[in-house]
Amino acid sequence: MSQPSFKPRTIAIVGLGLMGGSLAAACRAKFPRSRILGISRSASSRRIALRKKWVHTASRELKDSARADIVIVCTPVNVLKYLLGKIDSSARPGTIVTDVGSIKGEIVRWAAKKKFKNIQFVGAHPMAGSHVRGIEAACEKLYQNSLIFVIRSPGTSEKSIARVKSFWRFLGGRVIEVTCEKHDLIVSRISHLPHALAVCLMLSVPPQSLDFSAQGFRDTTRIAQGHPSLWGPIFLENRRKVFESLSRFERVIKQFKKALNRKQGALLWRMLAEASKRRRNISSKNASI
Amino acid sequence: MSQPSFKPRTIAIVGLGLMGGSLAAACRAKFPRSRILGISRSASSRRIALRKKWVHTASRELKDSARADIVIVCTPVNVLKYLLGKIDSSARPGTIVTDVGSIKGEIVRWAAKKKFKNIQFVGAHPMAGSHVRGIEAACEKLYQNSLIFVIRSPGTSEKSIARVKSFWRFLGGRVIEVTCEKHDLIVSRISHLPHALAVCLMLSVPPQSLDFSAQGFRDTTRIAQGHPSLWGPIFLENRRKVFESLSRFERVIKQFKKALNRKQGALLWRMLAEASKRRRNISSKNASI
Repeated sequence: MSQPSFKPRTIAIVGLGLMGGSLAAACRAKFPRSRILGISRSASSRRIALRKKWVHTASRELKDSARADIVIVCTPVNVLKYLLGKIDSSARPGTIVTDVGSIKGEIVRWAAKKKFKNIQFVGAHPMAGSHVRGIEAACEKLYQNSLIFVIRSPGTSEKSIARVKSFWRFLGGRVIEVTCEKHDLIVSRISHLPHALAVCLMLSVPPQSLDFSAQGFRDTTRIAQGHPSLWGPIFLENRRKVFESLSRFERVIKQFKKALNRKQGALLWRMLAEASKRRRNISSKNASI
Repeated sequence: MSQPSFKPRTIAIVGLGLMGGSLAAACRAKFPRSRILGISRSASSRRIALRKKWVHTASRELKDSARADIVIVCTPVNVLKYLLGKIDSSARPGTIVTDVGSIKGEIVRWAAKKKFKNIQFVGAHPMAGSHVRGIEAACEKLYQNSLIFVIRSPGTSEKSIARVKSFWRFLGGRVIEVTCEKHDLIVSRISHLPHALAVCLMLSVPPQSLDFSAQGFRDTTRIAQGHPSLWGPIFLENRRKVFESLSRFERVIKQFKKALNRKQGALLWRMLAEASKRRRNISSKNASI
């Protein structure tokens, strides 16, 4: 990291929910000399962001982002194209734009065709979040030590990519650059698949049995609390890869059922032991779990 | 709860792992006038139990349990029959025996055929535990406020059943009596099914993707860390009901895949919204999650 770090004078955050609110809080703490502008359609979110002093000014007008050196779009993925188009039309040339969306293939392919006039778009996806929504749940530490995927779009300059990486690193993220294809494949496995399974688990257990559930069930299904307005668009945009991951998962279930059906204790043991080993291996790499 | 509470003079705990160790600690705290005897084949577990003053005496001999008014068997389910047979042969008539095992059908049917000479066996299953094993992870509060299923066996007296309920209530449990059939069905859905899914999820994701996993994936798979020596016997004993629960789950997955494949946003939204609502409903019933 020999490049000089990027210190934007004005940071605009579009969308003041859990992700945007936390980002505003982190930016206030880490970039004390920058001006933070929060843009949200929700009057209550703007009020909270101002009251907590996470933003210097709050606006409901997207065009106010034209003043910023960097714009971070923190909205559900299905409105990202629309917002990028609008931002591009009013931005100064060279304005850096990044985001926090969970899928990248479609937006990168779209950006390649569209050819922005003014903005330099570099996608980002912080592996941070919660099943809880809204700025009420936001916190300054959300991105601290979290993995941040950075995904370049064709036509974006190396300098802009370096600046976006520098920005996320400065907020405490562990930045890794991947292609949009690789990104969407990885998240289909480690984020969208477990979410789909948690949802299907909630739907497959008869509600009257849920009253008896203990911590194990609750941990396994925690993420199913996520909101459909966030997750519906994610699943639709990444449907092919999620479909593949689910099919792969179904094959493992079939094997598990076969072991049960045939009372194959040795096969069952091997599956349980291998899963346990792999899971403990994740834990040992991260002291926080 | 008008019946007088049961205060055993001597409590024997067979097996000093997470469950038995925690039980010994809880008994020491809640029954300060009782003598606690810990029985374990592991010298190190006996040493720890003595050092922490969770037991008054520790022994590796099962027959030492003959002195107790109540014996609680805290071992994996596959050795329960063997241990109950041994305890029955040396116990005083009327000795109450309970356990903490995760399945009940097989043991209750076996007990009905066997007809114990001396012991009064009343099965119990506390919905408490952890993926961590061993007395090192034990804690006095494990059973505090946890749901305790109590399952009667044919031939056990009402008085013994009342005493076992009183015992678990005294330790802070919320006792509910169910039939062994109903118990095994409920736990196949809320405990064994999520465990099987967490295991299959760990096995279906290519290991190189696991490095990128964040909190959601980790929560969803936490229970997969459980040890095969505990979970193998549970799955084999409850295999029919787990098989059914898995089949039911597979049908929901098929529906989810269909919604993805046909881009049925409305169906997907309904599934996500219903799962989210059900899961939030569990949370709202229990302030601790």
